Amino acid sequence: MSRKVILYIATSLDGYIAKPNDDLSFLSIVEQEGEDYGYADFVKMVDAVIVGRKTYEKVISMGFDFPHADKDAYIITRTPKQNVGSVKFYTGNLKTLVDKLKSENGKNIFCDGGAEIVHELLKENLIDEFIISVIPILVGNGTKLFKDGRPELKLKLVSTKQFEKGLTQLHYKRTN
Amino acid sequence: MSRKVILYIATSLDGYIAKPNDDLSFLSIVEQEGEDYGYADFVKMVDAVIVGRKTYEKVISMGFDFPHADKDAYIITRTPKQNVGSVKFYTGNLKTLVDKLKSENGKNIFCDGGAEIVHELLKENLIDEFIISVIPILVGNGTKLFKDGRPELKLKLVSTKQFEKGLTQLHYKRTN
Repeated sequence: MSRKVILYIATSLDGYIAKPNDDLSFLSIVEQEGEDYGYADFVKMVDAVIVGRKTYEKVISMGFDFPHADKDAYIITRTPKQNVGSVKFYTGNLKTLVDKLKSENGKNIFCDGGAEIVHELLKENLIDEFIISVIPILVGNGTKLFKDGRPELKLKLVSTKQFEKGLTQLHYKRTN
Repeated sequence: MSRKVILYIATSLDGYIAKPNDDLSFLSIVEQEGEDYGYADFVKMVDAVIVGRKTYEKVISMGFDFPHADKDAYIITRTPKQNVGSVKFYTGNLKTLVDKLKSENGKNIFCDGGAEIVHELLKENLIDEFIISVIPILVGNGTKLFKDGRPELKLKLVSTKQFEKGLTQLHYKRTN
C-alpha cells in the first residue's frame, strides 16, 4: 500500500476555514475536554506534512512551535528560505514533491492547509483522501476551503461521524 | 409551534448547487431506485414554498411542471408578473413575506433555492432549519450555495444521515 496524501481540516458549514483576518475563533464552539475528533490517531498515521507558507507563519505568529517539526515537513513557498531542522521550505513543483514522497517508504502524508495549497494540489489531483470536520456554524465571510477553478473529482464516502458538540466529520477518498 | 422556514437542498462537497450553465447532472451519481433521501416525507410537512425566479424558470425551461403548484408558492422576482393559479410572483420584501406566512396557520415553509434567495434570507436570519444533502463529488466550478457577506449564525446539529450512494444529509437548526 502506497502512501496517501490526506487533507485533514475543519470548515464551517458554509465552507470557510477562517473568518477574515485568519480568525479561527469559531473552532472553539466544538472544544470539549477529552475530545480531539480523532486528531491524535490521525497524526500517528502520518510522518510527512505539506503546509502552505501563510498557514505555517500564522501558527508561528500565534506563539506556537510548529507542531510537525518531528516529521518530514515541507512548507510550500515562492520565496526560498533556509531549512530549520526537519522543516524544509519548498519552492518547487508540487507534483514533483508528492511523486518523490510517494516513491519513498513511509506513513501517510498530511496536507495541513491552507486553501491555496489545497487548490494547487487539487488542480493536479494530488489529494487521495479528505477528512473534513464540519463545524455547526455559518460564519458568513472569510477564506473558503475550496476556490473556484478546479477539475471535477468524484469521491467515495468512507464514513461520517457525528459528535456531541455538533461537529460532523466526513471522510472521503477519490475514485479516479 | 410556529411554522418554520426550512432550506432543503443538495450541494457538492465543495459547496456548489450547480455547475456552470445550471448543470445539475452531478446529482445523478446518487440516484438510486426507491431512494428519495427523505424528500417525499419532507414535502408532506410543508405547504408553502419560496423559490427564486431563476430557479423557477430553470425548472420550467427543462419542460417540467412547477412541482409546487399545489402549495402556497412565492416566486421571488424583481419584475412584477401575473400570478399563475396558486403561484405568486412576489416583488416585495422577504422579511415581510416570511412574517406574513408565520402569522398564518399552516405547515412549514420550504425554501427551494437558489443561491440568491438563500443569501437574501440569511442576511435577515430568516432560515430556521437547514437540511443539506452533500453529494460525494468536487465539481470545481459553478454556483456556490453560500455567497460571501452574511452575518454569522450558530447552528445546532439535529442529525446526520449517511446513504448507500455516498450522500450525507446534514440537518441543522439555528440557535439565535
